[in-house]
Amino acid sequence: MIYLDHAAATPVSEKVLAAMKPYFLDDFFNPSAAYLPAKKVASDYEMAKATIAHAIGAKGSDIVITAGATEANNLAFTALTSGCPLEASAGKLVLYLATEHDSIRRVAERYGGTEIKVQKNGVIDLGDLKAKITDETQLISIALVNNELGTIQPLAEISTIIREIKLDRLKRGVKTPLYLHSDASQALNLLEINVARLGVDLLTISAAKTYGPKGVGALYVSHDIRLQPLTVGGGQERGLRSGTENVAGVIGFAEAVRETKEHLNSNRKKYKELKKTLLDELQGYELVNKKHSLDSFIVLCYNGLDAERLIFLLEDREVYVATGAACAASKGEKSHVLKAIGLPEAEIAGSLRLTLGQTNTKEQILEAAKIINEVVEGEKKRLRNG
Amino acid sequence: MIYLDHAAATPVSEKVLAAMKPYFLDDFFNPSAAYLPAKKVASDYEMAKATIAHAIGAKGSDIVITAGATEANNLAFTALTSGCPLEASAGKLVLYLATEHDSIRRVAERYGGTEIKVQKNGVIDLGDLKAKITDETQLISIALVNNELGTIQPLAEISTIIREIKLDRLKRGVKTPLYLHSDASQALNLLEINVARLGVDLLTISAAKTYGPKGVGALYVSHDIRLQPLTVGGGQERGLRSGTENVAGVIGFAEAVRETKEHLNSNRKKYKELKKTLLDELQGYELVNKKHSLDSFIVLCYNGLDAERLIFLLEDREVYVATGAACAASKGEKSHVLKAIGLPEAEIAGSLRLTLGQTNTKEQILEAAKIINEVVEGEKKRLRNG
Repeated sequence: MIYLDHAAATPVSEKVLAAMKPYFLDDFFNPSAAYLPAKKVASDYEMAKATIAHAIGAKGSDIVITAGATEANNLAFTALTSGCPLEASAGKLVLYLATEHDSIRRVAERYGGTEIKVQKNGVIDLGDLKAKITDETQLISIALVNNELGTIQPLAEISTIIREIKLDRLKRGVKTPLYLHSDASQALNLLEINVARLGVDLLTISAAKTYGPKGVGALYVSHDIRLQPLTVGGGQERGLRSGTENVAGVIGFAEAVRETKEHLNSNRKKYKELKKTLLDELQGYELVNKKHSLDSFIVLCYNGLDAERLIFLLEDREVYVATGAACAASKGEKSHVLKAIGLPEAEIAGSLRLTLGQTNTKEQILEAAKIINEVVEGEKKRLRNG
Repeated sequence: MIYLDHAAATPVSEKVLAAMKPYFLDDFFNPSAAYLPAKKVASDYEMAKATIAHAIGAKGSDIVITAGATEANNLAFTALTSGCPLEASAGKLVLYLATEHDSIRRVAERYGGTEIKVQKNGVIDLGDLKAKITDETQLISIALVNNELGTIQPLAEISTIIREIKLDRLKRGVKTPLYLHSDASQALNLLEINVARLGVDLLTISAAKTYGPKGVGALYVSHDIRLQPLTVGGGQERGLRSGTENVAGVIGFAEAVRETKEHLNSNRKKYKELKKTLLDELQGYELVNKKHSLDSFIVLCYNGLDAERLIFLLEDREVYVATGAACAASKGEKSHVLKAIGLPEAEIAGSLRLTLGQTNTKEQILEAAKIINEVVEGEKKRLRNG
């Protein structure tokens, strides 16, 4: 098996599973219970939260643990003073990048959000951003790394623009708050992240994309923001997210973050080399994400071919790749991201997303290139003879 | 260690962990991905959901997987036609039992809910229920088994009352819907549950209380109910709860349910015997939950003693018990449940909750009784000499 879809899901390492194991079997106590072994579990949980938070330059008390990136993204939007996420507001409270993940698009739609354009290279159109910010705008959501192209957005530059607008609002006595949220799910295991340096007020991270367990994520929340909990009850996570803590999951997330951070530089170097090898070996493609993109994201366009058929044929040879984002793909929809960067229909239809990860070796990449070339050649022949 | 707090948390068995393991390490694929190994994961996930659903007499497509009972309880309340859970409604849309868990109380408060009284034995006061249902009432929430007393509520009887009211509404042309929700978190591993026989429209279950992993729960939703998702995004769980599926967690939940159901009768018999042994051996207590309660729940009152001090002293002897619900206890609050059944302050202060579980043996119970007797005796002596 050659797995080239690490943006969709990452495996948990034996080490991460070993870290989680005692919290399933022996240290299973409810962190809210009054006796010592339970308090020890509560303390281990807080330590794990601190480890996760440190990875983005924050403190444990700055983050809210969620069931994943989607919940964290939804929670971030409760910063809006309208409060209720269940009724679409007519106002233009929200701006979000045209290439955002569905978990941003769907929640933004609830508030009548407006899209910010991207350039052909997938990078935000800063002119469009500036033009669309009004005195009503409260939240701007821009993923640090796009999940289909791997495009890295210039968040520090964006936050400078936002800071200027906030200053101007202050001068003019406009009291509407303005927050910058970023979904960094795809970035955590590949970029150094520091919330202060990025200038974000809210930041989403996910264990499932960082070689940790599925079902765990976190939202960084800056001190001046008051969120509305999506779930109320026992008052866990400082009242922002009630429910018995997913102790094993958070311990696993922390261990995964520790491992990932340790190998961050060597992994990036490795992906750069693997990408070069792959692009050198492959034939007859166009590279969609040429610039401003993480080396682990390789989006290939085979003009005139059907990517869904390619995936199916590659699957037979045990090479696993994606078209658009996994969720869009399973619903048979065309990628809104490739549309947003202006790719014509025919090229969208022939686009494959390959995302490298810790499981990949040079041998695998050479083998994958050979198989992809053969499959593509076979398809072209079939169409010529068709 | 003698653990007598199974209502707060249950351990995961080696067998459940073994069932989860491959989904962390090898079958880690995103269920939404297009290739075969991912589709296999999606199918395993659906099979696991079906197993969980069968345990309550439902189909896999009838349940929505959540991050736990609290989220399931919160999701249930979105059945209210007002829709928005973030703003308290002045209307009396919601009735809930005075002894409900905080995850019901807090969300009910958002809608300005009204409490239904319980009798001294902890069982619902049906007269009070009938008196409080108005034409505005949309949702009635009553836990199948109370989490502090183990009281079993007569849900089938309650649902008969509700059915009559619905019929009456129909006759009079009143269009307001009326739903019965039950939090069955504490019941799943100890009672045969069948949603049709209970007559519930919505039912919450939790893996964390059923020897499965923390961070997984489910809400049964009857076909005629339209919920509002708390989180939107990729459209998982039929659009009712977006986010990459917690595959390993759900597989673990299913395995735990399978094991639990297999041993349901033998466990109940075991708890009945252990309870008898314990009550025979203990001295100088009053049993708070004499009737209508699961045998695994034993609430003892030591009049004049301080339960929090007893817990602390028992902890030194490695016997772990609780006062009120774990979450209330950690905040130093007095139990609203013991208040609701009319227990005087002094007796509430001296009340211990012991909950039996699969880890307990007869030897443990004899040893625990001996230690509790000694600790109680020591405390009485100290107070006499004080």
